[in-house]
Order: sequence, then structure tokens, then C-alpha cells
Amino acid sequence: MIISMSSASGVGSPSHENPRVERTKAKVLTVARELLSESGPMDLTFSALSQRSGVTRQTLYRHWPNRAALFVDIVLTGPTASYPEGGSDARSVTVEFLQSLREGLTDVPRATAVLAIAAQADRDPECAAALEEIAVDRRKALNALLTGSGRQVDEDEFAGLCGPMLFRHLLVHGVATDTLIDRTVDAWLAN
Amino acid sequence: MIISMSSASGVGSPSHENPRVERTKAKVLTVARELLSESGPMDLTFSALSQRSGVTRQTLYRHWPNRAALFVDIVLTGPTASYPEGGSDARSVTVEFLQSLREGLTDVPRATAVLAIAAQADRDPECAAALEEIAVDRRKALNALLTGSGRQVDEDEFAGLCGPMLFRHLLVHGVATDTLIDRTVDAWLAN
Repeated sequence: MIISMSSASGVGSPSHENPRVERTKAKVLTVARELLSESGPMDLTFSALSQRSGVTRQTLYRHWPNRAALFVDIVLTGPTASYPEGGSDARSVTVEFLQSLREGLTDVPRATAVLAIAAQADRDPECAAALEEIAVDRRKALNALLTGSGRQVDEDEFAGLCGPMLFRHLLVHGVATDTLIDRTVDAWLAN
Repeated sequence: MIISMSSASGVGSPSHENPRVERTKAKVLTVARELLSESGPMDLTFSALSQRSGVTRQTLYRHWPNRAALFVDIVLTGPTASYPEGGSDARSVTVEFLQSLREGLTDVPRATAVLAIAAQADRDPECAAALEEIAVDRRKALNALLTGSGRQVDEDEFAGLCGPMLFRHLLVHGVATDTLIDRTVDAWLAN
């Protein structure tokens, strides 16, 4: 799983609620992902979600106090990309990591939800915290993969590595090519 | 003006509608920016906008067929940042350009609107086109500033330059420091 899996504070870890509650949440999240793919975040309202899923609005609000919380769950669940392996070659480890990050974001509901959370972060401390936690967690994951190479990535370097690909893929809605990823990693290694 | 000013196709250029229409649009955009700052894009609905601005929903829909069109106008208007100057030193020109891009995005409604458009781009070709147009326009602007330096920036290099700062500022909601910008520009020049 790519932009998910938070080891640090248990976000996204399986909860120990009862199975019926878990089934309802999973069903609603599936419907929410369909709605996000079809209409985008602006039309993913609790009314629309209630109507489509057959779950009452009261129940929805019990699970997710607001739409931001729902979006965070959409990022943290969903299809998992193949996870890259660690190794001693910093270049190939980092290239594979970025490719797998990109693969995770080809899941449209997840990419949409990331952007919706980012758009809310100025006003919602929980969204801001979720974004930071995801970034910290992903950097830790890359550094764990890089252990055998003797290199590590600091915060600025992580922005330098992920930024170009995410700019192209998420912000400009263009194609983040393998060449872009290769050039980014080579520029990092040259410094 | 930073993420605005589209020379290419006239998006954002003054229209020649009548002054009363222009005043109404300007008033609604001001209210929309307030709502965006207060509540974020998910709560910027045409109902809320109508209620707060006193303009009927019918009139709103006449000006903006959907919320995406409204968000594009919010990006293309709004406070303008100090514009960098061109010069022969590629390093200082590019650093100032990125700083001014960052300054333009400290305007919360604009940053929020950019993310809201990006979140909609998978389903709305107009949003996707608007994003691409803004990116093409900004790269042209940087290359015009760089003319005297003899260097130019291709699409991948532009992603390499803007990506790290925008990743930190927009996607992770962190601080895009001057050091990050300096490191990014130095890595570009070293290649």
C-alpha cells in the first residue's frame, strides 16, 4: 500500500470494532470511492452517500464526523500497489519507490482524496496532521528501503524526489514519465 | 500575478461584458474567496454563495455553469504577487521566480482553488485543460525571464523546479523554505 500504512500513530491500522460496524464502513467506503470516481469530491456529500449506500446519515456521521475524516479513510484504504524492495543500489531503490508511489496514485479515488484533504488543510488541523503524517511515514519507508545503500533522505531531499512526479501527476494532471523519475533521482544522487 | 495571467488563450483576460455584470461577478468572487478561507472548498456551494452574496442562484449559474468554472476564476483573479525581473544570472532569476510563485500561493483561496481544480481534473476536461494551461503559461513566463541567461527550462526541468516547493507548500502543507528553493535551483544548474 502506497500512500497509506502509517506505522507511527496507528492511523489506518485495523480497529477492533465489531465486524458488523466494519462491514458497514467498508461498504460505505466502496460507495464513496465510486462516487469520487464518477463525480469528484465536490459532489461527494453525506446525502449522496446515504442515498447510494442505504446507510442513514446519522450512521455516517457516527463513523466520520465530517467529510475530511471520510477522505482520510479513502486515502488509507483502497487498492495496494506492489511494494518495492530494499537494496544496496540507492538509485534503483529510489526509482522503484517513486514508481510505486505513482502507481498508488493511479487509483483515482485515492488521488482525488489526497487533493481534497490538501485543499482542506488550511482550515482543518486534522487534515494538515494527516498530510504530514503520511509524508513522514513515506519518508521513513524510503529510508528503511535505503538502509543497505548507506544513503538516507532528509526532508528537503524527499520533497526534491517526490515533488516533480507529484507536481506532474497530481497538480498539472500530466504524465509523470519514467524519464522524469530517472532524471529526478540522478539529480539527487549527483548532489 | 502569479499563477494567473494566461497570455495564450485569453483565460483571465478582461472580458467586455457590461460594467454591471462585471461588478456582480467581482462581488461574488470576493464572497467566494471569503467562504473558501473560512470553510474550504467542500462547503463552497452555490446555495451558500447565493445566500451570502444576495445574488440569485440562477445568476450565479449564468456566470459559472459549475463550481469548477468558479474555482478557475478564483485562481485567475485575486491578489498579485510582486513579479520577478529577468536577467543574465539564471540562478537568481529562477530563485526569484519560485519565491514569487510561493508568495502567490500564500493567498489561501487561490491555493485552495488550485487543489480543488486538480481534484476535479480526472472527471472534468475543462479543469484538466485549465491546469495544463496555467503550467504552460508559467513555464513560458520563466523562460522569458531567463532569455538573457542563455538557459531555458523544458517540461521535466519545470516539474523539477516547481515540484519540490509545491509538494511542500500545497501537498504536505509544510514550509517551503528558501533553502529548499536554493537547493532545488542548484540541483537544476548542476545538471
